[in-house]
Amino acid sequence: MAASPANVPQMHPDPADFQDPAYREAVVDLLAAISYGEISAFERLAEDSKMAPVIRDKVALASMASAELGHVARLHERIAELGADPFEAMAPFIEPIEKFHRHTAPSDWHEGLVKAYVGDGLAADFYREIAAYLDAATRDLVIASLEDAGQADFVVDRIRQAILAQPSLAGRLALWGRRLMGEALTQAQRVAAERESLSALLAGGIDRPGLDLASIGRMFTRITERHAERMSHLGLAS
Amino acid sequence: MAASPANVPQMHPDPADFQDPAYREAVVDLLAAISYGEISAFERLAEDSKMAPVIRDKVALASMASAELGHVARLHERIAELGADPFEAMAPFIEPIEKFHRHTAPSDWHEGLVKAYVGDGLAADFYREIAAYLDAATRDLVIASLEDAGQADFVVDRIRQAILAQPSLAGRLALWGRRLMGEALTQAQRVAAERESLSALLAGGIDRPGLDLASIGRMFTRITERHAERMSHLGLAS
Repeated sequence: MAASPANVPQMHPDPADFQDPAYREAVVDLLAAISYGEISAFERLAEDSKMAPVIRDKVALASMASAELGHVARLHERIAELGADPFEAMAPFIEPIEKFHRHTAPSDWHEGLVKAYVGDGLAADFYREIAAYLDAATRDLVIASLEDAGQADFVVDRIRQAILAQPSLAGRLALWGRRLMGEALTQAQRVAAERESLSALLAGGIDRPGLDLASIGRMFTRITERHAERMSHLGLAS
Repeated sequence: MAASPANVPQMHPDPADFQDPAYREAVVDLLAAISYGEISAFERLAEDSKMAPVIRDKVALASMASAELGHVARLHERIAELGADPFEAMAPFIEPIEKFHRHTAPSDWHEGLVKAYVGDGLAADFYREIAAYLDAATRDLVIASLEDAGQADFVVDRIRQAILAQPSLAGRLALWGRRLMGEALTQAQRVAAERESLSALLAGGIDRPGLDLASIGRMFTRITERHAERMSHLGLAS
């Protein structure tokens, strides 16, 4: 079982922290990254749903797409409350997120399903880890935005069935899962390097404890462990 | 102003009518046609949203797509309650609805917007007219499924702006609106001819008054008038 984020020291800034422009900017950045991630996920899942073998499965993937988009309005409202324009705030995240999708275009229905499940799970874990260091209202909003409506069970079921029917699929999809993980890390590092506000948030401030290297290491260990759990649910090696 | 459906004689069968297999079948047919229409609208709007000039507009169209899909679960639940399989029930409507979309593939962003507004409005008017002859619970479900969440204002605004900037667009989009109307009527007639349950519903039964030809004529007059109103909102001749 993976370590839960509850094990890490909780450093929740007070709402008064929003007086600190650097904190506010970091929260806007985080909410904007999640928003564009969800818009982009909508587009990709809607596109991938065309490859569905039957309408039932198409509707399931299309519903996952809609669920992603359904969180955007609340995130945008909060960005506006914090004094920023949601569309301007999203701009810096478009290129890395689109690059992730360009580099991980599924070549068939099963790759699309694995990407929906594994990619969404990775993004959710990553954002939840960051949210653990934020004020309670932001954290709740982030966590609510990352909930799936149980569609993950559908993916697990379809992938397990497909592997039963065609065992050679397991090797190819396991490689695909590794590629998704590698590409996600590449783009996440790129964002961290370019968006100082987000890395400054994790590094802490004068009044706010930050993460030391060991904590960051443990964060990545948790994310990697949960990725391995998801792959294993799918019946795939990680 | 268009005549409202409130002016037509209301013939609302009692829930006991669900004992009549022909009535039940007609309701299943109607709910299935609406369901597949919404699934298909989701796909087309999600596809058309790629042509958006800016992300704000893309999100607006993607939200229209999600709103359509959001009604499907409740419709499918009701179809299942009536003893039918929702996916089997939708099968007869796939071909005419897909044909409508194939014959009206927008060639640019503005055609996509007009189609979203005019096509959706036409379908909603048509289904609402039929629903006026059904039991109250079915009627309420149909009407709730056809509500838009105010996204229509977005289309009207964008098309009016586009025509101001480029007046020659108005002629082309007016023609496009006529083509959408023509194609919608063609496919609706095809469905009416092939699905006896729906036309039998309108024709009435032993215990249930039906529509005479004059009433059907008035129904089409109302639908045409509302189409003309929508075109006029867009600043287009009909």
